[in-house]
Amino acid sequence: MPELSRRAVLAGAGLGAVAVGAGVAVGRGTATDPAAAGTTAVDGVVPFRGAHQAGIVTPAQDRMHMTAFDVTTTSRADLLDLLRTWTRMAERLTLGAEAEPGGVVGDGPYAPPSDTGEAHGLTPSHLTLTIGFGPSLFDKLGLADRRPAALQELPRFPGDALDPARSGGDLVIQACADDPQVAVHAVRNLARVAFGTASVRWSQLGFGRTSSTSTTQATPRNLFGFKDGTNNIKAEDTAAVEQHVWARSADGMDGGSYLVARRIRMRIEPWDRSVLGEQERVIGRSKGTGAPLGSTDEFDPVDLASTTIDRDAHVRLASAEALGGIRILRRGYNFTDGTDGFGHLDAGLFFVAFCADPGAQFVPMQQALARHDALNEYISHVASGVYACPPGVAEGRDDDFWGASLLA
Amino acid sequence: MPELSRRAVLAGAGLGAVAVGAGVAVGRGTATDPAAAGTTAVDGVVPFRGAHQAGIVTPAQDRMHMTAFDVTTTSRADLLDLLRTWTRMAERLTLGAEAEPGGVVGDGPYAPPSDTGEAHGLTPSHLTLTIGFGPSLFDKLGLADRRPAALQELPRFPGDALDPARSGGDLVIQACADDPQVAVHAVRNLARVAFGTASVRWSQLGFGRTSSTSTTQATPRNLFGFKDGTNNIKAEDTAAVEQHVWARSADGMDGGSYLVARRIRMRIEPWDRSVLGEQERVIGRSKGTGAPLGSTDEFDPVDLASTTIDRDAHVRLASAEALGGIRILRRGYNFTDGTDGFGHLDAGLFFVAFCADPGAQFVPMQQALARHDALNEYISHVASGVYACPPGVAEGRDDDFWGASLLA
Repeated sequence: MPELSRRAVLAGAGLGAVAVGAGVAVGRGTATDPAAAGTTAVDGVVPFRGAHQAGIVTPAQDRMHMTAFDVTTTSRADLLDLLRTWTRMAERLTLGAEAEPGGVVGDGPYAPPSDTGEAHGLTPSHLTLTIGFGPSLFDKLGLADRRPAALQELPRFPGDALDPARSGGDLVIQACADDPQVAVHAVRNLARVAFGTASVRWSQLGFGRTSSTSTTQATPRNLFGFKDGTNNIKAEDTAAVEQHVWARSADGMDGGSYLVARRIRMRIEPWDRSVLGEQERVIGRSKGTGAPLGSTDEFDPVDLASTTIDRDAHVRLASAEALGGIRILRRGYNFTDGTDGFGHLDAGLFFVAFCADPGAQFVPMQQALARHDALNEYISHVASGVYACPPGVAEGRDDDFWGASLLA
Repeated sequence: MPELSRRAVLAGAGLGAVAVGAGVAVGRGTATDPAAAGTTAVDGVVPFRGAHQAGIVTPAQDRMHMTAFDVTTTSRADLLDLLRTWTRMAERLTLGAEAEPGGVVGDGPYAPPSDTGEAHGLTPSHLTLTIGFGPSLFDKLGLADRRPAALQELPRFPGDALDPARSGGDLVIQACADDPQVAVHAVRNLARVAFGTASVRWSQLGFGRTSSTSTTQATPRNLFGFKDGTNNIKAEDTAAVEQHVWARSADGMDGGSYLVARRIRMRIEPWDRSVLGEQERVIGRSKGTGAPLGSTDEFDPVDLASTTIDRDAHVRLASAEALGGIRILRRGYNFTDGTDGFGHLDAGLFFVAFCADPGAQFVPMQQALARHDALNEYISHVASGVYACPPGVAEGRDDDFWGASLLA
């Protein structure tokens, strides 16, 4: 099925009530017959509702825009209003619709447009929008008793060089899509309606995925040029997802997950000048095939008894075997953000992971890596955040919204 | 023809001498028969050589990574060495090859890999690499007499709020591609081999094109939500290209062009809160169709006699009619670079234009816009650069290289 324009998608999804102004062209999407979309799944649309939020085990899209917000209110009612609005908009946006009925021009000349317009005519692009709540949110709103037990600030790890301005935040939105303009458009429209309730704290664009979250995807490469996330949890391994990704606590997080974000600056210049043998020693894998050193296939198991794999190789220290069975779902992106002011690109890996309990999974993993990983010579963690991502918005329940189980 | 892997492309393009290490998988491109590529044009490859550089009238790719460099040498010989190396690498990269023979792993364990690897297996993605030389380059190298007459620093325009750290530069590389990872990979590899001769001054990622440069492309939208560049010069209008884009001077620039870059911060929050009527008044076009106000079709001519179009509307002031016939080739990109520290996204338009003579085209245009454009309430020019882009590297001449006509 060809990708469809926003208008066709809306019609097909039964959201035909979205009025696009009469006489207004619909942009470069050119599906001619909205009815062709029928009422079945529309290409390029990831379902918004369900037991879990989309954007976690969804096959990782190629581009990401993540933005954290700080609330500028102490009113729970105001925040709940925003979350209801965001939920309504997010569902529309993932369908490829404008953010609100009325769209780019529909409200007439005397009102601000209810959508900013730059995605008009673009396809849904598998957009997913995933929300998370930072520990600080609960304190600010006087709701410390509602804070999920597993939502704790991360400890300081050895070597951390965190920029507070790029870390933390009361709310976070992860927008992932095949088309970055669709992801940025979604975040920008959510930020727009947050005016008066929440303001942008930090924002990060990721230009290329560094993880596969499905067996249908090839393993991509990070900016060290190595395949990344070969042993990642895949959506198809439902037992592993159930065990390692979904929270099952009775504190509003049943079916939710915890997002850990780490902005990892890569020192790509010294890396690029190091010899292949050193690079492979540090990672513990062959740069070409991605196979563990001493093996031939990317997906061969990492043999921890092998002395071919360095004692402090990244693949060894990050392996479930070395970590007593700990696994996390990685969903990170390559980034480049201008320069560091010293003649180098400011580039690296925006690490994103989801897990059922950061304190039991990410923290011990990162403690092991921060202390011993041979890769530490070439990386620096420069920003950090942890967020509780509530369960998905229920199907068929118009009154449900993002975070209702935690905050309503 | 399906998109092909880097290895297949190389074979098809007769660059089979590129050794990819034995036993090394070629990544996620999975074309099975390199011979299928034949010796004809390969899908996803924009020819590197020709009378003009690629990336100027090439149909604008969706993503861009532009990086400026300062030379760290005063030796012309060193610079020429770099330019020869860059030329060789650029041609390979646009074919979808690794930057140098040997590739990701081919040089063995005791040498740094000759390509950083993160594009291994990705398609050529219509990558173009375009080089430009800033006015400062000629002074630094003691070659002021070689500086093309039309390469002059831009004057200060009313309202300019330029950050010197994001402006200027001795050299600039514009990398455009369908896949941003392919563009970033190319720039990163050129930066890598520049070590000791040139260092990164500034770098800008553009996530979505805001111009069409071909009649085969639909007009995209900028972050104000409006169609941008409707009246842009199109490659198919060869008379306009010849007149407005290509320099025809005997100072080494015959067939070259001048690149003007302006980082334009958009104040998207006040814009988003302004009413549709105000937005359309400022631009002078309908937000939905892109038609000039009072007209119905996007490509209807702008009627300067119409009082429906505000005296200071952007479309009026930027029109060739109002500017005595001046036109430029726009090739800009939307960007978002984190936050401004005041609760807003740092976002806008990275304006890129090519013209035969900036002093006769861009400067008077920008003087008119900077003084009167109604849009100035919502934008701020925060960085600037002007560069001489020499003619293309000649076909069939192995000794030709980027900038030979200017610097050799």
